[in-house]
Amino acid sequence: MANFKGHALPGSFFILFGLWWSVRCSLKYISRSLNKNSRVQWNFKHLEIIEGAVKVGFATVGILAEQFVPDGPHLYLYSGQPRSWVKLMNWQHSTMYLFFGISGAADIITYSLTKMPIGLDRFMFAISFFVEGFLFYFHISHRPMLDQHIHSLLLMAIFGSAATCLIQTFMRDNMILDFFIASLALLQGTWFWQIGFVLYPPWGGPEWDESDHGNIMFITMCFCWHYAIAILIIAVNYSLVYCCIQSCRRSNRQIRFGLGIKKQNNSHAPLLNGLDDE
Amino acid sequence: MANFKGHALPGSFFILFGLWWSVRCSLKYISRSLNKNSRVQWNFKHLEIIEGAVKVGFATVGILAEQFVPDGPHLYLYSGQPRSWVKLMNWQHSTMYLFFGISGAADIITYSLTKMPIGLDRFMFAISFFVEGFLFYFHISHRPMLDQHIHSLLLMAIFGSAATCLIQTFMRDNMILDFFIASLALLQGTWFWQIGFVLYPPWGGPEWDESDHGNIMFITMCFCWHYAIAILIIAVNYSLVYCCIQSCRRSNRQIRFGLGIKKQNNSHAPLLNGLDDE
Amino acid sequence: MANFKGHALPGSFFILFGLWWSVRCSLKYISRSLNKNSRVQWNFKHLEIIEGAVKVGFATVGILAEQFVPDGPHLYLYSGQPRSWVKLMNWQHSTMYLFFGISGAADIITYSLTKMPIGLDRFMFAISFFVEGFLFYFHISHRPMLDQHIHSLLLMAIFGSAATCLIQTFMRDNMILDFFIASLALLQGTWFWQIGFVLYPPWGGPEWDESDHGNIMFITMCFCWHYAIAILIIAVNYSLVYCCIQSCRRSNRQIRFGLGIKKQNNSHAPLLNGLDDE
Amino acid sequence: MANFKGHALPGSFFILFGLWWSVRCSLKYISRSLNKNSRVQWNFKHLEIIEGAVKVGFATVGILAEQFVPDGPHLYLYSGQPRSWVKLMNWQHSTMYLFFGISGAADIITYSLTKMPIGLDRFMFAISFFVEGFLFYFHISHRPMLDQHIHSLLLMAIFGSAATCLIQTFMRDNMILDFFIASLALLQGTWFWQIGFVLYPPWGGPEWDESDHGNIMFITMCFCWHYAIAILIIAVNYSLVYCCIQSCRRSNRQIRFGLGIKKQNNSHAPLLNGLDDE
Repeated sequence: MANFKGHALPGSFFILFGLWWSVRCSLKYISRSLNKNSRVQWNFKHLEIIEGAVKVGFATVGILAEQFVPDGPHLYLYSGQPRSWVKLMNWQHSTMYLFFGISGAADIITYSLTKMPIGLDRFMFAISFFVEGFLFYFHISHRPMLDQHIHSLLLMAIFGSAATCLIQTFMRDNMILDFFIASLALLQGTWFWQIGFVLYPPWGGPEWDESDHGNIMFITMCFCWHYAIAILIIAVNYSLVYCCIQSCRRSNRQIRFGLGIKKQNNSHAPLLNGLDDE
Repeated sequence: MANFKGHALPGSFFILFGLWWSVRCSLKYISRSLNKNSRVQWNFKHLEIIEGAVKVGFATVGILAEQFVPDGPHLYLYSGQPRSWVKLMNWQHSTMYLFFGISGAADIITYSLTKMPIGLDRFMFAISFFVEGFLFYFHISHRPMLDQHIHSLLLMAIFGSAATCLIQTFMRDNMILDFFIASLALLQGTWFWQIGFVLYPPWGGPEWDESDHGNIMFITMCFCWHYAIAILIIAVNYSLVYCCIQSCRRSNRQIRFGLGIKKQNNSHAPLLNGLDDE
Repeated sequence: MANFKGHALPGSFFILFGLWWSVRCSLKYISRSLNKNSRVQWNFKHLEIIEGAVKVGFATVGILAEQFVPDGPHLYLYSGQPRSWVKLMNWQHSTMYLFFGISGAADIITYSLTKMPIGLDRFMFAISFFVEGFLFYFHISHRPMLDQHIHSLLLMAIFGSAATCLIQTFMRDNMILDFFIASLALLQGTWFWQIGFVLYPPWGGPEWDESDHGNIMFITMCFCWHYAIAILIIAVNYSLVYCCIQSCRRSNRQIRFGLGIKKQNNSHAPLLNGLDDE
Repeated sequence: MANFKGHALPGSFFILFGLWWSVRCSLKYISRSLNKNSRVQWNFKHLEIIEGAVKVGFATVGILAEQFVPDGPHLYLYSGQPRSWVKLMNWQHSTMYLFFGISGAADIITYSLTKMPIGLDRFMFAISFFVEGFLFYFHISHRPMLDQHIHSLLLMAIFGSAATCLIQTFMRDNMILDFFIASLALLQGTWFWQIGFVLYPPWGGPEWDESDHGNIMFITMCFCWHYAIAILIIAVNYSLVYCCIQSCRRSNRQIRFGLGIKKQNNSHAPLLNGLDDE
């Protein structure tokens, strides 16, 4: 789907995931540093399974959309006499979605079965990012210079994600890596939108000169700005989550404190307040 | 041996090894997570030595085949006046087999002598994969585009295997890496067959256009499908082994339980059943 | 600012930081190996915050300078009809300074807030070096051979710094990595000056032939000499700091010894001397 | 020194070091696995210092040779009017020797001073290999195809050594890495000789056709054979050292046993024999 929508759709997926990961990681690390009750850990395990199911769902939708849009291949791989390939672009996109689907399935299996090796989910996620990057790499040859350059910048975000997931296979629960993945997902998402706006301007407007060196220089710099914005979004999300949790705890404590006053008649209240502070 | 058989032979070797490794790793990790008696550990050590011997055997067969096929070099390196090289292709393949043979010898030495450093076998295996990739890399220049592309995809599986073995030198007994090696061996094996079918169609049929960009795009995507199938095969193998071991244990327990009933006259039976559950 | 000053300014920044880091690391490791009182640790934490503030200051100065020099873009990104980019070179330099500013902010946050993950400051520093290298990489295409070569050597120092900072994210307090970063900063700084002297000779003089292979060979070798000098500077700095600390301690001990004599009337003196030796 | 001797000299240095390292590592690991008295450890520390001094000596000889051979630059960097560079080839070789000299100095400092960080010697050795590879990389452009290819293979051994030394900085006393470095030094040494024989045949003979693809293919394969031979040499050295130590220990024990018989009159002998077995 070489049009604006074809870039906006995956872009939106990645932005959603990036926002969600930045919130989830903030929740995870702030709640961990504040209190260490096992109930919260349990919740995160369930979240991972739900996330895996969402990934499988998105991937299925993606594959079906790529195959059955009006100008899609409708599951035909080749046709005609002499035989020629049918809509290989859409088939390649379907393959990318397939691997993200496999990664989602690996998430579900890893967190629902007990005997599975820790890190399998991250490893399969690394593989799916790698396949995405691998297909993109051969996807973008034989195109005009600006088109090639703007897509090759995307490769940096993709392979960066693949490498980070691979490291996470062996080094879990590193806060920096978790936030880095979230920032790269945001970068990938906003950059998909940027590609859409540059190559297929939705509201018409003048076309970009695809061989102007100035445009290349601007696009390169613009990529860095997108990443700066991704960092900013994550910092803001982290602060918001921190404030929310703090105000929750404060109101929670006031309620407990209120209960404490009521209960001060019986001598258990100080004990309860003490537990609350840990 | 630039023909269909010359690609089917190494392909079959790699598929066999891939299947075997996926079964062995499944056995190793499932049996480890279920029971921890030392007898099983001992068996795996013997298996490694046998595997090394099989590798040496395959390598010897490979070298002899490459040298003494009717159109082989018959151990002549150069001939004629002025001197010219004799069948360098076959010599290069012999060199690849030689290093896999050295790797097999390293396996045998590592697991039969006690003083050898742990990881030597994986390191030599990494070296042999690296040599394979290194020779392939210079092998495939000066060829038509499709031929070059389809072989260069093989390089990804080869160098991936080399890198994984290198990591295993320092990080042993990581289940994910073990299964990854198995999946890459399957990928390499099925891809050798794919190369054979594309470049030397065994039942005639129309030739592939070696300079069509559509073919390149399809081949790239097809490589990803091969890997998806390799993942599927490994998942199925793991499930089968798991079911086998579980049913073995269940029947085993029933036998013991039967024995237990018989032995319940003397008071040792509960002890025996208790040991069985660990 | 493609002139001598435009290279001398960042060069001076990097030399200053390189010198400072070599002194700070020497202080840190020598004082740690000699005495382990918590007061010194505390000082280093404050130093990091000050360093972060200095980075933010330098970055702000850099951005303002690049924007508001007489031939700068004055915050206009594009202008004219048809629209064309305004001074993209200066915008790119501003972007580089922006990321070093973000890195400085991350330093301040990491060391002033207690809940932040260890290593965040190094990770953001790695990102800012990476962005610098990334922009430089696309910066230098379409230039004469010598210009391109002399700038691409700079990339080695930049990406080397990025990689080292990335490793430091996970492996803190490794003395070798700390000194390596310092040496690369010195190398980058002196090489900026070298670029200025070669491409924009400040006192006139004959121009360098930009396509002479001999010049390329000399510049390559000269880069190694710069690094040898950087190593020498760090070794000298380390020795100086070591001598200073030793003489301080000796004079300190003499003072204490003097006090000890005075105090020998009361019996606490030997205790005091004993503490001093640890 | 672009002639046979100019390649035979560094080749011999590397072969000597490779042989010596393979013997030293064998001695170190076999003696460690057999007995753990501190006297042996002490000897190795002294050996490192001597090795560093030998490196400094070789480097000094190398620099002087490159500068003061009859057709050398005699310390002139440029001359003539208009100025032109004097013998940059020799200057580059001098620079390589300089960094190996610095590495030798780092060895001496690391092992003679107590406060130096562990791994500094390996890190400087990595730097010196890296500088060698870096200079070689730009050295070999603008040459005939075979010349370029045969030198670029050398780069693999050089950068392999650099990477291994870098890993050793953080992972000391890994037997596999130690032997790998020794094998790469042997490979580099024998390959220098091979380059000499191919490009400057010492006893005349027919010249190699520098643009024949068959020659390239043979040279690539030959490089693998060299490495197989390097592995063989190391295996033989290890076995020889093992046999030597075992026979020494046996004769030693027999002597002690003889002494033991004589001393059996006094009751200390069994104690002595007991110590010997550890």
